[in-house]
Amino acid sequence: MKALRYENQKLSLADVPQPHVDGEALVRVTLSGICNTDLEIARGYAGFQGTIGHEFVGVIESLPESARGLTAGQRVVGEINAGCGRCDLCLAGDPRHCSRRTVLGIVGRDGAHAEFLKLPAANLLAVPDEVSDQRAVFTEPLAAACGILERTDVTEDTRVAVIGDGKLGLLCAQVLKTTGAPVTIVGKHQSKLAIAKRRGIETVTVDEVQSRSREFDLAVEASGSPTGLRLALELLRPRGVLVLKSTFHGAAEFETAPIVVDEISVIGSRCGRFAPALELLKTGAVDVESLLSEEFPLVEGLRAMALAAEPGVLKVLLRP
Amino acid sequence: MKALRYENQKLSLADVPQPHVDGEALVRVTLSGICNTDLEIARGYAGFQGTIGHEFVGVIESLPESARGLTAGQRVVGEINAGCGRCDLCLAGDPRHCSRRTVLGIVGRDGAHAEFLKLPAANLLAVPDEVSDQRAVFTEPLAAACGILERTDVTEDTRVAVIGDGKLGLLCAQVLKTTGAPVTIVGKHQSKLAIAKRRGIETVTVDEVQSRSREFDLAVEASGSPTGLRLALELLRPRGVLVLKSTFHGAAEFETAPIVVDEISVIGSRCGRFAPALELLKTGAVDVESLLSEEFPLVEGLRAMALAAEPGVLKVLLRP
Repeated sequence: MKALRYENQKLSLADVPQPHVDGEALVRVTLSGICNTDLEIARGYAGFQGTIGHEFVGVIESLPESARGLTAGQRVVGEINAGCGRCDLCLAGDPRHCSRRTVLGIVGRDGAHAEFLKLPAANLLAVPDEVSDQRAVFTEPLAAACGILERTDVTEDTRVAVIGDGKLGLLCAQVLKTTGAPVTIVGKHQSKLAIAKRRGIETVTVDEVQSRSREFDLAVEASGSPTGLRLALELLRPRGVLVLKSTFHGAAEFETAPIVVDEISVIGSRCGRFAPALELLKTGAVDVESLLSEEFPLVEGLRAMALAAEPGVLKVLLRP
Repeated sequence: MKALRYENQKLSLADVPQPHVDGEALVRVTLSGICNTDLEIARGYAGFQGTIGHEFVGVIESLPESARGLTAGQRVVGEINAGCGRCDLCLAGDPRHCSRRTVLGIVGRDGAHAEFLKLPAANLLAVPDEVSDQRAVFTEPLAAACGILERTDVTEDTRVAVIGDGKLGLLCAQVLKTTGAPVTIVGKHQSKLAIAKRRGIETVTVDEVQSRSREFDLAVEASGSPTGLRLALELLRPRGVLVLKSTFHGAAEFETAPIVVDEISVIGSRCGRFAPALELLKTGAVDVESLLSEEFPLVEGLRAMALAAEPGVLKVLLRP
């Protein structure tokens, strides 16, 4: 089968054998989405070798006998962390921090930019009929945005600022808006900010927001830059909460003293559960269609990756 | 009166008028303690000009008519943040984050290394008879350590690591130990670690702790160095809590990605309430005597500051 692989410091479209299922479910990929993490991996920053990609929607090709509640032929999305199944975290049903986990297309497990992938059957969730493939392929990044609500409380009184108007920032802002909280997104691109504006989110440029120091209770850093981190700290009131969503390579340099003096809480947030994200996609509470930039056939994966790395481009999809 | 002042980039012992009380309480200082913040101010890092010092015990010399529950001649300690009295925070009884606050010897208000100081009467707390002056002078730094418990939950199951065996680290470790939690302090000086060991706290050197990656639920950064910050992150389990206690000048450079990937919570903590600290001093639950390095008369304040800046020195006191 075809697969987009990063190996020996090189990204290439390769012919590889179909995954050996080994007690897991086999999924035929319908669509996969390119994430900034894929770009970081292709720059050699993550130490991963293999098929990249972790955002997908597909159809179950085969299931292990032990699988419950799923049938072959069903449309599915899949949570990307596969735990050891035996540690306390896994036994409690949450393998996201299992120390021996593999992560689809990120850590020790071939990913989704391929014709087929395998995952534990327990990781798969059926996609409701109302949710098209083009929407379902956003489940993973949308779940990551929903993950913020697992890590901190947001009420309709929480004044929220989201820093960054890329894919991640636009999803975070929309998810936070569903809580009833007033949400402001800070960005540089009017065309991207317009997507948030249509959802009732206040939009401001980086220049405009400078006058609003200490106005916000919660700031989400989704710009992926140390500048965004420093801006987020400036916008927060004392005892405010800063959610870090972006992972980026390299050390950020910033003063930690304001975190102490203003008693800020800095909360790291990585993967979220898929069920709340599927619910948001089903009810149409979040606009993901506007985040689509372009779709390529998988065989043009290298061209798609190059486009995804260009400034101003939002989600690029691959179709095997 | 004599006062130890930082003005025009210079620390000096000066003769200044006694404070004009202006509706506040006047306190004759019995003992004051030199804090690392004083050393930072004397290096010009904090932008403060005036009499330095914020740790003290003293005797009430005079009170405004409005003062309740205190009398002249009483031994007192004093919370160091003086709010505007009119904002929501002040009206809720907590001026620690009032945006117009002054802070004794730190922001816009002459401090405690002097014969007299003034503070709002509401900031003063009577010192119980059982607590000697030498113990009471530790109320402010001990309250700062107690402040950790205002910002994060600690139970007897919380595995705690405190990074740094200076004054701050030793106070934090002892306060956390009073919760029943198992506490480990990480330091470089056997003589300082011995103080913690006598209180049932596990002591390890920086070298020894390297093998204990991801073992702790809560880490307190009290070393005041970026190295300590990075070590604290290494010692925490996924979803662990890192409390930042040290303020130090300059940008720290570190990778933020592990905070996201391991979903760490980084919690800033500055000042604590005095009442819990006075209670710990009263019951003898915390050993502060062992933290005393030397006492100087106030007129030898410059020599005392020089000693306090030397490696290995713990608390240096001044007696007006």
